[in-house]
Amino acid sequence: MTHPLFTKHEATLNQALAAIATRGYWSPFPEMPSPKVYGETASSDGEAAFKAHLNRTFDLDQPTTGETVGNERSPFGLALGIRYPKASVDALLAASAAAQSQWRAAGPHAWAGVSLEILTRLNKASFEIGYSVMHTTGQAFMMAFQAGGPHAQDRALEAVTYAWDLIRQIPANAYWEKPQGKNPPLAMHKRYTVVPRGTGLVLGCCTFPTWNGYPGIFADLATGNTVIVKPHPGAILPLAITVRIARDVLREAGFDPNVVMLLATESNDGPLVQDLALRPEIKLIDFTGSTQNGTWLERNAHQAQVYTEKAGVNQIVIDSVDNLKAVASNIAFSLALYSGQMCTAPQNIYVPREGIRTSDGQMSFDDVAKTLAAAVEKLIGDPARAVEVTGAIQNDGVMARIADARQLGEVLVDSQSLAHPAFPDAHVRSPLMLKLDVRTDTAKFTQEWFGPISFVIATDSTAQSLDLAGSIAAEHGALTFSVYSTDDAVVDAAYGAAIRGGVALSINLTGGVFVNQTAAYSDFHGTGANPAANSALSDAAYVANRFRVVQSRVHVAPKTAPPTASQPA
Amino acid sequence: MTHPLFTKHEATLNQALAAIATRGYWSPFPEMPSPKVYGETASSDGEAAFKAHLNRTFDLDQPTTGETVGNERSPFGLALGIRYPKASVDALLAASAAAQSQWRAAGPHAWAGVSLEILTRLNKASFEIGYSVMHTTGQAFMMAFQAGGPHAQDRALEAVTYAWDLIRQIPANAYWEKPQGKNPPLAMHKRYTVVPRGTGLVLGCCTFPTWNGYPGIFADLATGNTVIVKPHPGAILPLAITVRIARDVLREAGFDPNVVMLLATESNDGPLVQDLALRPEIKLIDFTGSTQNGTWLERNAHQAQVYTEKAGVNQIVIDSVDNLKAVASNIAFSLALYSGQMCTAPQNIYVPREGIRTSDGQMSFDDVAKTLAAAVEKLIGDPARAVEVTGAIQNDGVMARIADARQLGEVLVDSQSLAHPAFPDAHVRSPLMLKLDVRTDTAKFTQEWFGPISFVIATDSTAQSLDLAGSIAAEHGALTFSVYSTDDAVVDAAYGAAIRGGVALSINLTGGVFVNQTAAYSDFHGTGANPAANSALSDAAYVANRFRVVQSRVHVAPKTAPPTASQPA
Repeated sequence: MTHPLFTKHEATLNQALAAIATRGYWSPFPEMPSPKVYGETASSDGEAAFKAHLNRTFDLDQPTTGETVGNERSPFGLALGIRYPKASVDALLAASAAAQSQWRAAGPHAWAGVSLEILTRLNKASFEIGYSVMHTTGQAFMMAFQAGGPHAQDRALEAVTYAWDLIRQIPANAYWEKPQGKNPPLAMHKRYTVVPRGTGLVLGCCTFPTWNGYPGIFADLATGNTVIVKPHPGAILPLAITVRIARDVLREAGFDPNVVMLLATESNDGPLVQDLALRPEIKLIDFTGSTQNGTWLERNAHQAQVYTEKAGVNQIVIDSVDNLKAVASNIAFSLALYSGQMCTAPQNIYVPREGIRTSDGQMSFDDVAKTLAAAVEKLIGDPARAVEVTGAIQNDGVMARIADARQLGEVLVDSQSLAHPAFPDAHVRSPLMLKLDVRTDTAKFTQEWFGPISFVIATDSTAQSLDLAGSIAAEHGALTFSVYSTDDAVVDAAYGAAIRGGVALSINLTGGVFVNQTAAYSDFHGTGANPAANSALSDAAYVANRFRVVQSRVHVAPKTAPPTASQPA
Repeated sequence: MTHPLFTKHEATLNQALAAIATRGYWSPFPEMPSPKVYGETASSDGEAAFKAHLNRTFDLDQPTTGETVGNERSPFGLALGIRYPKASVDALLAASAAAQSQWRAAGPHAWAGVSLEILTRLNKASFEIGYSVMHTTGQAFMMAFQAGGPHAQDRALEAVTYAWDLIRQIPANAYWEKPQGKNPPLAMHKRYTVVPRGTGLVLGCCTFPTWNGYPGIFADLATGNTVIVKPHPGAILPLAITVRIARDVLREAGFDPNVVMLLATESNDGPLVQDLALRPEIKLIDFTGSTQNGTWLERNAHQAQVYTEKAGVNQIVIDSVDNLKAVASNIAFSLALYSGQMCTAPQNIYVPREGIRTSDGQMSFDDVAKTLAAAVEKLIGDPARAVEVTGAIQNDGVMARIADARQLGEVLVDSQSLAHPAFPDAHVRSPLMLKLDVRTDTAKFTQEWFGPISFVIATDSTAQSLDLAGSIAAEHGALTFSVYSTDDAVVDAAYGAAIRGGVALSINLTGGVFVNQTAAYSDFHGTGANPAANSALSDAAYVANRFRVVQSRVHVAPKTAPPTASQPA
């Protein structure tokens, strides 16, 4: 039982299946915001569409109390003034349950086809979503477009692909025939039905509402579940647009649009979310956010499969380099990118206190630290260019954390307020870099300091650096780990530490790839093997528990005749 | 990096991969205890091997305190007198951790190859294990051989196959090349390593120690984990033999045998198990047993992936039949088989109070009940033959439950003590069947009465029967569900109820297939979609969370040259 939208997108799905198997570069969603690809007026149309949302009530035809909520502010300095229909949890759960039987019965081809059609429409809205991501998260536009648009769409398609890859392996029917010696065989017809779990809840974050939200939304949809999307109160708009597009596609395809619904809230929504997360109707939860909230969900929402991405301590080990300037330049970009407000941004940079080997000879610890600091200073030297890397600070918590971190040790580069040429009220802060020592400061650097905060840490040796990297990842979590070494044995040892810490390793990045960026279909985001996340985006484990198989069996006439009583000799 | 044992068993693994994809009949492990298959002396050799275990200490060269434990009694009336080396939890966890790095580094081919070699050796020991299962569980020999031997081996191989099927899809290496317009492409070499979670704990049950224990053991091994096997104190021997064989294979293949260890205990081991289950080293738990203990694990062992099979209420809906005698005969066998001491045995039989249609016309509720009762009476009419179906009662709890259940309603067939011709002290009890009514007795039949206890329940209609079946499965759990109807619309409605209840449906079984028996590679045992089990044996979800992938990436020279500056027009 196929579906027209499956047929429409089948070629893309097949390419995606090949991509996750070979893990080479591939994407159907162009990452450059180019007029040639997206259309000459796409950028201005998208910006206009974004601006049209401001200072009015977002239109969404789902169950509502009639009231509105919403209090988003752009980190670039403007109040968005958008209000969203307020919904009661009971009404949303009831509408989600009501939408289930038709959606469940539609079957896997429809789930995949509708998911892919939604993604195609989202891709067309990449500029509108990009501006919305920019003005809720504080990302600079290029990043907001790429990470919030095509890259998020890639991660969504990846989840759909993993779901389809498992589901397609379950036959709809089987013929089972068991020999019975001289008697006729036992023969049965069996039927297998993929059955979703029920309602999924996706809890968005304020820094990557679409990139971190889409995998859960689309993994749920592609396995036949209905979804309630609960954005972070500070970054509702990108997910509201997403939900509206999903509902449009569902409605046009003849489905109840309540398969996907939005639960917009204002700040202090913790008690509401905790109540909702424990409701028996909620069978799947995808969460991105703090370790405290994620762990609470893992330990309390027993009725649901819970997928979490939480805090971690990302680490860089510098052992030996050819050219420290190229290394420093790559690291500085990673530290400055979106002001380190990335779950993948590096924080701890380990350097042996005896210094490191370079192609120009031994370099002292202090000179390494100075070179790293100089690279940061160079990057922010032209504020007008720098703000296109750093974006703005998303919330006051990050601002306060920079102030707190400044007290932790000797400042190598202080965080500065940068003027944004286009947005005078934007909260822009350059990276803060401190010097610490493993002998005295362990308690300081074994926790996450989310934001533009990094530490150059003196260690006794590279061996100790690697040991720290592995054990801190295992104990405190990590999403990224990077090593710089010209010695193959050290690189091998780093891979060993990565395996112990359950964290992906990047080796000697000095060019256009940065440790905090991963590529869908090729890089697993997170491993699920350390406390930073209990799952990876995306793999089979991320989707396998979102559905179950119900079967039937009934006797039929055997196709094979029983052996004759006397076989010819 | 392949492994000689992988190569040796690769053809079998490929056949198993085909079997789980097509779900037709297949098995590499012959289920008939035939001298032609297993050897002329296999049965007597196996019985002798079993008897050689009695009244002595089981030899196992793993860490031990020097003391011994063990207090197994055969439900057929003999004390086994077997003592097992006592082990401290700390020593086992330390030895398991010490065995990990070599086993992890051996890689997926070794994990699969060693697992398959162990299964081949277990198959050769099927008679020894069969007699051991018989005299710990109380199963009659034929069932003990089949369910405890080849069928358990099939479920183990199925788990290995699902694990391999996922792992083989992760490439060891990838080349990733991302175009950069006019600039040279970004090119990276990536490496992917499958990493096990750590130590798995398998908690066995007293009725199917191997059948329910093997999937977890082999799913763990095939994904590179080490395993501690903690049998039920009443059924240690089959798993002790299994662990010894596994250790022999590991040792011969050059691995630390502590990859698989036994934790034998005596009764009242609850506190020890609870402490062990919460240890941070334990990353995977497979449990078969009571709802109380299973739910405790699910709610408390947050550090582990927990797979549980718990209690359920299995149901039969009788709507209309061609030949009630054939129906009754099939049901009676299902009720009597191993005295209903199966998680899959039916308990609630719903019949409309107005009676049912048969090919001989309408038959009243009471006549249906009488026909079912008569079939049970006929089956037990010859005790010497009946005991080969019923086996013996495993424990005093089941004996007490029969006495309690007798008070619940009108007795249709009373449970009798049957004399076993070979074992005069065996505890053999025939099925108890009672008459209940949905209008008054709901509280009685919405819980599991584990053992040879069933209820013929008068309902207002087949529609109500199906509604009960779906809702009781969803709320209280169920592993099996059976419908008898000559009406296609009713069968379709039953499949709808099965989907709502998340339970497999058997339709009109009147021949040699029984609702409480499932076939590996074809039937999923459990669905994971209702409270009776949070996973199915086996599917992708059962294995996907037992491993993770750690990757590395490093720049390499691009294979593709960048586009030339001026393309030909």
